[in-house]
Amino acid sequence: MLLLIDEKGRKYLTGEDELHTKYGVVDLKEVRPGGTVTSHLGHIFTVLEPGIVDLYEKMPRAGSYMLKKDLGLILAYTGVGTGDVVVDAGTGTGALAMFLGNVVSPTGRVYSYEIREDFARLARENIQRAGLSEYVEVLNRDIAEGIDVEASLVTLDMDRPWRAVPAASRALRPGGFIAVYTPYVEQARRVREALKEAGFKAAETVELIQRGMDFRAQGTRPKTARVGHTGYLTFARKY
Amino acid sequence: MLLLIDEKGRKYLTGEDELHTKYGVVDLKEVRPGGTVTSHLGHIFTVLEPGIVDLYEKMPRAGSYMLKKDLGLILAYTGVGTGDVVVDAGTGTGALAMFLGNVVSPTGRVYSYEIREDFARLARENIQRAGLSEYVEVLNRDIAEGIDVEASLVTLDMDRPWRAVPAASRALRPGGFIAVYTPYVEQARRVREALKEAGFKAAETVELIQRGMDFRAQGTRPKTARVGHTGYLTFARKY
Amino acid sequence: MLLLIDEKGRKYLTGEDELHTKYGVVDLKEVRPGGTVTSHLGHIFTVLEPGIVDLYEKMPRAGSYMLKKDLGLILAYTGVGTGDVVVDAGTGTGALAMFLGNVVSPTGRVYSYEIREDFARLARENIQRAGLSEYVEVLNRDIAEGIDVEASLVTLDMDRPWRAVPAASRALRPGGFIAVYTPYVEQARRVREALKEAGFKAAETVELIQRGMDFRAQGTRPKTARVGHTGYLTFARKY
Amino acid sequence: MLLLIDEKGRKYLTGEDELHTKYGVVDLKEVRPGGTVTSHLGHIFTVLEPGIVDLYEKMPRAGSYMLKKDLGLILAYTGVGTGDVVVDAGTGTGALAMFLGNVVSPTGRVYSYEIREDFARLARENIQRAGLSEYVEVLNRDIAEGIDVEASLVTLDMDRPWRAVPAASRALRPGGFIAVYTPYVEQARRVREALKEAGFKAAETVELIQRGMDFRAQGTRPKTARVGHTGYLTFARKY
Repeated sequence: MLLLIDEKGRKYLTGEDELHTKYGVVDLKEVRPGGTVTSHLGHIFTVLEPGIVDLYEKMPRAGSYMLKKDLGLILAYTGVGTGDVVVDAGTGTGALAMFLGNVVSPTGRVYSYEIREDFARLARENIQRAGLSEYVEVLNRDIAEGIDVEASLVTLDMDRPWRAVPAASRALRPGGFIAVYTPYVEQARRVREALKEAGFKAAETVELIQRGMDFRAQGTRPKTARVGHTGYLTFARKY
Repeated sequence: MLLLIDEKGRKYLTGEDELHTKYGVVDLKEVRPGGTVTSHLGHIFTVLEPGIVDLYEKMPRAGSYMLKKDLGLILAYTGVGTGDVVVDAGTGTGALAMFLGNVVSPTGRVYSYEIREDFARLARENIQRAGLSEYVEVLNRDIAEGIDVEASLVTLDMDRPWRAVPAASRALRPGGFIAVYTPYVEQARRVREALKEAGFKAAETVELIQRGMDFRAQGTRPKTARVGHTGYLTFARKY
Repeated sequence: MLLLIDEKGRKYLTGEDELHTKYGVVDLKEVRPGGTVTSHLGHIFTVLEPGIVDLYEKMPRAGSYMLKKDLGLILAYTGVGTGDVVVDAGTGTGALAMFLGNVVSPTGRVYSYEIREDFARLARENIQRAGLSEYVEVLNRDIAEGIDVEASLVTLDMDRPWRAVPAASRALRPGGFIAVYTPYVEQARRVREALKEAGFKAAETVELIQRGMDFRAQGTRPKTARVGHTGYLTFARKY
Repeated sequence: MLLLIDEKGRKYLTGEDELHTKYGVVDLKEVRPGGTVTSHLGHIFTVLEPGIVDLYEKMPRAGSYMLKKDLGLILAYTGVGTGDVVVDAGTGTGALAMFLGNVVSPTGRVYSYEIREDFARLARENIQRAGLSEYVEVLNRDIAEGIDVEASLVTLDMDRPWRAVPAASRALRPGGFIAVYTPYVEQARRVREALKEAGFKAAETVELIQRGMDFRAQGTRPKTARVGHTGYLTFARKY
């Protein structure tokens, strides 16, 4: 798998011997990451080994997916790292599972639950491509029916996540975190009620608003266009 | 090292045999993480093994420190994970270095540069306490004078960070990231100019605004009080 | 009524002949707006004729009150101006009624409904002090029981504002606006449902987040502390 | 001048006897505001007398124009109202001048300076259409060369607004306000320096971020798309 970047900054991810672009055909048979390659039309492409963020950006999608600001807050809020066992649901395209696998490996594990078989299959491919299959297992099961491992962290980005709160509570080790992503206010409220009922502590719900900045010759300002609301992140701790 | 949490949710970090609190004295000689202990005044404390976020919250400070939303965006934006070599400056209290060490270990390394000797010493203690000394090395040196390793990521949270951009450029492997934290607009602008001059690509500057949510009997709303601006995060890539 | 401003920028509103401050006693018998006066301790005070914003800032409060950003959006969103008849509920301290009276006078009128007699009395005093009694009438009545005038604008900042939506609908002239201020999400939602049921058109709910900017020698940035959420403003139109 | 609104909520402003739309031709010869009219294709249009916000929304543009949130903050922050004399520059399309005229009339006046003759002409037409010509005078002059009246408020939305600060300082009555709109951080900073130099007091710079709310069957959330940054508003007072 190679990452190519054209003169405009557009990215191409490919495992083939040849890449067809509107800037011409690129022959990749002799190419190695870290250099450049020129298409038959004379355009130059940078060649890199794709990192996890490149795979995330270019991976086949199914439905919506979490943005980096929200992925990042889950990582930093819970301090998840090497050696942790994480339970994740629903897998979706596997984006969050990939980022989690990338930080818990090689000694930790991610068990990611997905009820839709087509999503589970797609996620497994995305995770395989990221070289994380050894550390991230996708289970085609309903997480609300029970979790088989003891976890440091349970992440929920699924329909009606409150259904999974009791199972998460039983699976978490003392001091473990739950992190729940919900687009709507009412969902966040219902999650908070479920967390309270299940005895979770230190619950907190936050939203991150990301503003890009524009640096122009005339001056500096926040961007005039941007992504708006994505979702609420609710965190709580089991003890 | 044990983490105790009192009935109000306040946290205590201690390596001693006895903890003195306003809720009474707690005898810790026989206590293990995962249970509770009662003070001589009858108050109950939860006992946990401290995680990295507990150590982060309770660690001795020197100057300002990065909030989790910003730490998290660095983790997710760059996809830093197991096996990566990261260069960080300035170390400060070691907060960012700790989070980085926590995700790159056991096969990766963090080299954290700090010109103030007192900060370097404090950071080493904080990192030791987090059990990350093997993976995070604090160097009492000026990063602008040069970096000795090849890195996947360089993070800068220091005075006049543009001084370190050329050194970062030379140290980064193809496809590697730089992430620079600056409180002020003018600093961010100057960083962007330095990045351009050094040939960095795909530069972007963002700010995260975090809003807490209040769930009350009367209804739901964003919190009326909150933390405001912390800093701008500028990212770019070497290729 | 005079407005005095001390050397620190603190404001004093007084109708008396003498003002006692911690910077000394100020004799106001011979003083006119537009100059300065010196206290018996030698401190200088600027003397001004108070404007409506000074009266707003210094007026006796009862409960919460709308901030200028929200007051302003009501003025600009609805285009209320000279000659308009406005119905307002609840009056509270009279802040919104005052701003409305200030823009609709001399040919328009504000009818402000307040069920609490003590609030109605306080509001009348605040409005009198602003010289707007001729244009703003405070009615100690429940607006939900009916409105006696035809209005260009109905503003609601009251408990359970949906109760008043049918009365507002009957009172508004074709093309007239309703503006409803609610602190909580659920209230805004219920208002939107009531507006739909009453046949209002072009409904929209917005929130304004205000960020102050800091200009320091070191650089420029958004303020690190600030006021958070105040309320949601829902607008709709009758036609 | 009539305002028509079609079944989709789209607005049409016309002074003609006939309106051609994609929903058919509407005969307006016998039509009065407050009712409906049916096109020759059977589509129903609501007919209203246009208010100032309708004229603002439909008026011929030249360059950018201030949004209602920013217009509103100027109105509420300064408390401008009936009887005030306001000086405004640059006029642009006349949007701010119109809103100011609408609140200061009939006893106040707006003097709006615009150096471009084509903008001045366009603004005069927009103001005429709003029926405000008696209260708003557009001057095809450079405000920085001097202001001939004593004003309660000076508003600046122009290139290099710091040039006009000394003239504004001389024109303002004691206690009067200046309000300056600038898209860029550096401009706001330079305005703050000019205000300080000219002896202005109580300077403050703010930005308003507007978030729309979505109320759907599934739940409530801030809108996922929205307008971003518009500009910084700097306020100060002369005394």
